[in-house]
Amino acid sequence: MLENTERTELSTLGEFGLIKHLTEHIEIKNASTIKGVGDDAAVISYKDKVTLVSTDILVEGVHFDLTYVPLKHLGFKSVAVNLSDIYAMNGQPKQITVSIALSNRFSLEAVEELYAGMLLACEKYSVDLVGGDTTSTTSGLVISITAIGEADKEKITYRNGAKEKNLLCVSGDLGGAYMGLQILEREKAVFKENPKVQPDLEGKDYILERQLKPEARRDIIQLLNDLKVIPTAMIDISDGLASEILHICQASNVGCELYEEKIPIDPQTFDTARQFGLDPTLCALSGGEDYELLFTINLEDYDKLKNDLDITIIGHITNPEKGKNLISKSGSSHPLTAQGWDALLKK
Amino acid sequence: MLENTERTELSTLGEFGLIKHLTEHIEIKNASTIKGVGDDAAVISYKDKVTLVSTDILVEGVHFDLTYVPLKHLGFKSVAVNLSDIYAMNGQPKQITVSIALSNRFSLEAVEELYAGMLLACEKYSVDLVGGDTTSTTSGLVISITAIGEADKEKITYRNGAKEKNLLCVSGDLGGAYMGLQILEREKAVFKENPKVQPDLEGKDYILERQLKPEARRDIIQLLNDLKVIPTAMIDISDGLASEILHICQASNVGCELYEEKIPIDPQTFDTARQFGLDPTLCALSGGEDYELLFTINLEDYDKLKNDLDITIIGHITNPEKGKNLISKSGSSHPLTAQGWDALLKK
Repeated sequence: MLENTERTELSTLGEFGLIKHLTEHIEIKNASTIKGVGDDAAVISYKDKVTLVSTDILVEGVHFDLTYVPLKHLGFKSVAVNLSDIYAMNGQPKQITVSIALSNRFSLEAVEELYAGMLLACEKYSVDLVGGDTTSTTSGLVISITAIGEADKEKITYRNGAKEKNLLCVSGDLGGAYMGLQILEREKAVFKENPKVQPDLEGKDYILERQLKPEARRDIIQLLNDLKVIPTAMIDISDGLASEILHICQASNVGCELYEEKIPIDPQTFDTARQFGLDPTLCALSGGEDYELLFTINLEDYDKLKNDLDITIIGHITNPEKGKNLISKSGSSHPLTAQGWDALLKK
Repeated sequence: MLENTERTELSTLGEFGLIKHLTEHIEIKNASTIKGVGDDAAVISYKDKVTLVSTDILVEGVHFDLTYVPLKHLGFKSVAVNLSDIYAMNGQPKQITVSIALSNRFSLEAVEELYAGMLLACEKYSVDLVGGDTTSTTSGLVISITAIGEADKEKITYRNGAKEKNLLCVSGDLGGAYMGLQILEREKAVFKENPKVQPDLEGKDYILERQLKPEARRDIIQLLNDLKVIPTAMIDISDGLASEILHICQASNVGCELYEEKIPIDPQTFDTARQFGLDPTLCALSGGEDYELLFTINLEDYDKLKNDLDITIIGHITNPEKGKNLISKSGSSHPLTAQGWDALLKK
């Protein structure tokens, strides 16, 4: 996927030339961006709001595989997952910086594709790209993004505010991104065996999109704001539902009961999991990369959210002595554990 | 230098364990840091000041060579060079985020050394480490740091404010970091030929320190503030004096006259350059990594700075038609060009 009809070597531009080329058409969208790319630092003014900062580093061969991830999708996703962290604080992302390190295997056209995806995400979420750094590596591609945003101090939602009897809520559905990855890995293996076989992706659009082009849930933050609901705790689901619930419970010093039957799983995710001989619930619990929002609310706010189809109440918070438990469909209780992807595949 | 008597594999901690291990003893120093490590994003409040953000990415084999750079020095330097960008805006760095990607070649003890250097820089410059990301690579070490700081809006110094007749000033002395690198590269080559030969670093302390443990010029920003001097333009010297002067001239749409005889060069830098058969002036112009501050001031401020031994007036700003020129010791004028390191070595 790195092939292009045109190929311009990065060395023909040099570092300053490359940065200029990639950033010269960027238009500033936010009033809070006083100065973007082009000086020693970007300048931002949030006036009476506080500043949120979150950062991620993505490494080729660890976080993404360019044999099946198009660079434009990678660019979009790498921005979206960072913005997701700002939304998870109940804030609004406004700026990002982008640092990339890449080998001369990449052409200028390839880097343009990557940036096009990043700028598409900036456009979609009304975020300004205000700075960054571009350098070479001896091998591979590394992307480091820092997202900066603003929040009303009294609306910031940490992980540590969950209280006994709070309801545990999640947006969207879970496990899809993980099953999309399984499809892509399967087709990669088939391709390695026989490069003439066309990839079989039919009927898998939804889960492939969940993996390749995840959305940050800006709409949920907007909805909560409109409904005047301030969650007591919130986190985005990057490592799987189980891991994130445990983070909230640990930070808040509480226990929880999570109901297996309530966990939202899309039919395509469910059927694909079964095709792969995997337990759909386990994919939702440990799959990760869904970038949905997991949050807790006060009981009084239940009526405001109960009819929203995109938010599911999946359990409730208990006192810490009760532990963190999954109540299975049969009604039995099991301690919740964060297994992560590796454990999932070794089953 | 990666050897240690103890060696704990990173895999024994896992990602969350590693982050916890590295960050659990961090104490917050700044009132503006509302929430540091441990949630989806850090929370910062600068009240009526504006926010500055700068980011850098450093790659093993490109920006540093672990055969002669101790990890603790690398940690210190990687933070200091980022803070330098915030000072170059006439601001005060207050927080950093640190993302590292590293292979299993590195032990926990090695990562602790790196972090110890970073935290030493945080201590020295009163900066809080508020977040980051840690991940694996298939090879090598990548460090990505984002520095966040505050500034009074009316004191921010951009690159584009230089005016005709302004004086061109520089802090400290130049070319030392580059000559330190030459010494280290020479000794590395000797060591490769014959590992039994002890490195010959005698009498080179100053330039080695310039290369291995550069300081960000917080003191100069403090001094300018105390003297009530707001530079008209400012930049830090990461790529060499010539390149940075050209940045200011381009951004400000002005020309300049730089006097070769005024360029501050330490005797150790001068002598070492001569030993290597290099022109000391060229080392100062194109060597880079000095992290001194280059700035322009109004003529009226001359009296306030003229007696400061650590600030040298090296030239003045002209109208753009005059071009950007170096006036040699013999009095002849030459167009200033940014050659960079490669050109320097190929001479």
